[in-house]
Amino acid sequence: MIEDDFLQDLFRKLPPAPNDLIVPVGDDCAALRISDNRLLLLAVDQVVGDRHFVMSETSPEAAGKKLLARNVSDIGAMGGVPAHCLVATASDADSAASWLGRFLDSIISWSRTWGIALVGGDLAGTPHDFVASLTITGYVDENKVCRRSGAQCSDCLFATGKFGSSLASGHHLHFTPRHLEGKWLADHMFAKAMIDVSDGLLLDAERLCRASGLGLQLEPEKIPRRTPQTSLQAALSDGEDYELLFAVAPDKVALLQQQWPFSNLQLNCIGRFVASEPGLIVSEEGRILNSGKKGFDHFNLRTEE
Amino acid sequence: MIEDDFLQDLFRKLPPAPNDLIVPVGDDCAALRISDNRLLLLAVDQVVGDRHFVMSETSPEAAGKKLLARNVSDIGAMGGVPAHCLVATASDADSAASWLGRFLDSIISWSRTWGIALVGGDLAGTPHDFVASLTITGYVDENKVCRRSGAQCSDCLFATGKFGSSLASGHHLHFTPRHLEGKWLADHMFAKAMIDVSDGLLLDAERLCRASGLGLQLEPEKIPRRTPQTSLQAALSDGEDYELLFAVAPDKVALLQQQWPFSNLQLNCIGRFVASEPGLIVSEEGRILNSGKKGFDHFNLRTEE
Repeated sequence: MIEDDFLQDLFRKLPPAPNDLIVPVGDDCAALRISDNRLLLLAVDQVVGDRHFVMSETSPEAAGKKLLARNVSDIGAMGGVPAHCLVATASDADSAASWLGRFLDSIISWSRTWGIALVGGDLAGTPHDFVASLTITGYVDENKVCRRSGAQCSDCLFATGKFGSSLASGHHLHFTPRHLEGKWLADHMFAKAMIDVSDGLLLDAERLCRASGLGLQLEPEKIPRRTPQTSLQAALSDGEDYELLFAVAPDKVALLQQQWPFSNLQLNCIGRFVASEPGLIVSEEGRILNSGKKGFDHFNLRTEE
Repeated sequence: MIEDDFLQDLFRKLPPAPNDLIVPVGDDCAALRISDNRLLLLAVDQVVGDRHFVMSETSPEAAGKKLLARNVSDIGAMGGVPAHCLVATASDADSAASWLGRFLDSIISWSRTWGIALVGGDLAGTPHDFVASLTITGYVDENKVCRRSGAQCSDCLFATGKFGSSLASGHHLHFTPRHLEGKWLADHMFAKAMIDVSDGLLLDAERLCRASGLGLQLEPEKIPRRTPQTSLQAALSDGEDYELLFAVAPDKVALLQQQWPFSNLQLNCIGRFVASEPGLIVSEEGRILNSGKKGFDHFNLRTEE
């Protein structure tokens, strides 16, 4: 069972959401209304040693940055500004106190860079593994928040950046989260629906489609690949790209391309939303693209490749 | 190095708290101002298999309840009402999917009981261990929030319930968090400073004293013990009691005892705050009580006893 199915089963057991919960569980972040038109975003993500990174080959600084950046990426995917974080670590305290200290120092340092306040933490010991979770908050205006739902038929699917070979290239440790870009897209009302790509382009595009009740016609040759060695399959399903996928109305495409202020980050229309079975992704010739391996399931796989 | 020292070292590296952060890191919860006189509380806590409970002897239902209840206890210690939670689990998905499902079902079930909405989650795989963290939010009015600081010289130290033998009696899995009591104490302005006892009465009383810049004269014979077999030392330092310790002004003691509406839960004045070295706890004869083993450090010890 993959994580999505497991979580869907779980979410079905939840009671109705309370009134203050504007975006319930199941999006990149949940969103609480805290005052008129003001939402607080909430998300949690983890890193596990020898799962999200190889303990023996990864510096604690890189691992700590990755944990924070994964969460910042989720805030960006809602169009928000990251604000606070809480960190919980479980590790072998006897052998790893200095490793843990450097891991946490890195989170503090990058928090400062990205304007995030560390407001809580818990340290526990484990028999074997290293596990850390980080809960992040962010702020966004209710009339600007970008959900996974909201795409409409004929909208263009845009993607920032390049895809694939995240592990081989080291991108999975050293990526820059796209929260400034996500906020800009939300502020200027370009993104009607948005998600960040953590588990693979096809899998996250499928999530966007399902939430919007649409299918997608993808143009795989328009997807930029990270390295000359990156195969199309790798670009479609490797995961850990931490780029943004978002839906743009056809009549705003030219304006977006003209006004996009992030000159170092490429922006590409890689497909178009279509009325079909929700979540179905096809090529221009109608071949189904997301029937096999779609992405990287952090829940089930023991290693990243 | 114990968790407190490690965290103090870490907190010193933090930049100044942002303006919306009314209670920064270092209390039972952090508190953000979300509107006039309205605070959102945030805290995170973990359970680790074979650390916070014995995997082979504990049902997933009990472990899940414990994780949520530990966090509810933190909200109660601030005088708040629990509102939302996010859960992250790391486990061996291949062998433990049904265990994990029951663990999460238990959290959902108890969330419903306590009026908490599950708003986010992350599932990851681990090579060996079971680790789960839960981030909780809560609401409290700014003029009622109970911090660890705020006790004054001559205030009485009150405790709810009984202490010690939490592991042997099973209390550490089946306790009732004192959030209703904490909210009542905050609403009626009885508690000037408050903390919940997770790591042992002496250690958590010391934290209350340090935050308030005071010492404490404790009357150990007034501390109710959980079982007839519980020694004084056990009552003082076993931990996992999840009772409330709080400071009450001398002129409000009689009123508190008269109005206390929780007839099934005993309330005892077990000491008095005094002007001395902050954090120092002495008996009536002046013997220092908190120089040796003070409590249970979840960060360093491999097992609970």
